[in-house]
Amino acid sequence: MTDSDNLHRLDKAISLAPVTEGDTSVLRGETTPEYWNMVGPFGGSTAATLLRAVLMQPDVHGEPVSLTVNYAGPLGEGEFEISVKAERTNRSNQHWTITQTQGDQIMTTASAVTAVRKDTWTDVEAEPPSAAAPEEIESADPFPGINWVGSYDQRFVEGAIPNESSGEQDTSRSTMWVRDNPPRPADFYSVAAKSDTLYPRAFLRKGTYLPAGTVTITIHFLADAAELDSLGDDFVLATGYARRFGRSYYDQTSEIWSRDGKLLATAHQMVYFKI
Amino acid sequence: MTDSDNLHRLDKAISLAPVTEGDTSVLRGETTPEYWNMVGPFGGSTAATLLRAVLMQPDVHGEPVSLTVNYAGPLGEGEFEISVKAERTNRSNQHWTITQTQGDQIMTTASAVTAVRKDTWTDVEAEPPSAAAPEEIESADPFPGINWVGSYDQRFVEGAIPNESSGEQDTSRSTMWVRDNPPRPADFYSVAAKSDTLYPRAFLRKGTYLPAGTVTITIHFLADAAELDSLGDDFVLATGYARRFGRSYYDQTSEIWSRDGKLLATAHQMVYFKI
Repeated sequence: MTDSDNLHRLDKAISLAPVTEGDTSVLRGETTPEYWNMVGPFGGSTAATLLRAVLMQPDVHGEPVSLTVNYAGPLGEGEFEISVKAERTNRSNQHWTITQTQGDQIMTTASAVTAVRKDTWTDVEAEPPSAAAPEEIESADPFPGINWVGSYDQRFVEGAIPNESSGEQDTSRSTMWVRDNPPRPADFYSVAAKSDTLYPRAFLRKGTYLPAGTVTITIHFLADAAELDSLGDDFVLATGYARRFGRSYYDQTSEIWSRDGKLLATAHQMVYFKI
Repeated sequence: MTDSDNLHRLDKAISLAPVTEGDTSVLRGETTPEYWNMVGPFGGSTAATLLRAVLMQPDVHGEPVSLTVNYAGPLGEGEFEISVKAERTNRSNQHWTITQTQGDQIMTTASAVTAVRKDTWTDVEAEPPSAAAPEEIESADPFPGINWVGSYDQRFVEGAIPNESSGEQDTSRSTMWVRDNPPRPADFYSVAAKSDTLYPRAFLRKGTYLPAGTVTITIHFLADAAELDSLGDDFVLATGYARRFGRSYYDQTSEIWSRDGKLLATAHQMVYFKI
């Protein structure tokens, strides 16, 4: 048994081997079946993988504060390369750019800010949606043919995935408890991935599947490493909604809450759709 | 009188001269006093300038859907250069990366997605905050020493800039009508700039000025060019709030609404602060 057999499936998906180091570092990874989406890998695991490329750099300064990922084209199965560069390092923060390629094709571009965080005045002003405990809610069924959904235990509080009898809805809001399957301790990677787990809001509004795909996601990390570490492998509460649909795109905002009511992260997407 | 004298101050601020064209195009611009902030230019005019660098490219495909700007360091007064590259062009969208430099220092990194938008099902699900008409509200005073504020007519509906008697507040929400000063027809540049006009939310919560600066902003364009064009130079309604403050950073979301209740754009920031 190798080390790799002991790794959680998420850690396997975000595993990267350094290829070259320098002003721009290059790392190599490989797609894994457990996070496969319809075409290409799940956007959340790609985001986590790019974040890992940054946090593996020996000169990384601080913890992630933001990550923007632009999905330029769907990765094929197999190996990919990631180039990562610290564009500027300041006293309290660091600005990164990241590019993911397969062969000579650019598949994903990204940028991240890491920062040294200090104690300041603190307040969680937003409020989590009300929700029964995850233990009182049944797990959602897996999506046939969409592997990555099986890598999560999703328990819907509201706005469950539509079925044949759902019909159109007035609201795009879904709220669900979500945990890695199998469970895995929380860190920036798992939160980044979970911030993309809510299914496309257009499905809910229209009560049906339709072509939809994230073109860009921006994740803001509101919790620090110590706070994420204290969560263990517990469920987090993901809630999300869209503000406006039209002319081939809509926005989607997701919030990731801890069970004790702390907002851990937000994610803001623009999603392509067709209907 | 030259053409430049006829230009609106925003158009002057975002003026760029092509330096070299090719796989990566380089353009040159210059800071202007009318959009100067305390240190460096107003983040909104920088965002508009970087967007202009993209939209000036002869091979630009479609209209802007998203723009993420990472403020790595404050520009000094004077000339700057912008490098812009189409990383990937797909049938329906295009992925851009942008870098702003002064001398050999990277000041700003950015990415943008442009896209060909088509007619689809459409709905504005979110609702604008209620607000009296701008004609019924007085313009806010200029900020002493902060030039860019004078380039806008800001009329607060709620959450006005704190003064000595304000004290701490429970909510970080501000809503204001905002128009270019002098008035200017709406387009993607003016909307991008306006999406950063709401002052730092920490000022409102703490009832005082304190060190605060945006490190990254992501603007999502929900209206297309024709819709922006139809607005003329009317006021738009900007509303914004923060969800969580702590450990040197907080988030800020802004929404930009038309007078007739259409959501034009959103902006999501991470803001450094100290208190």
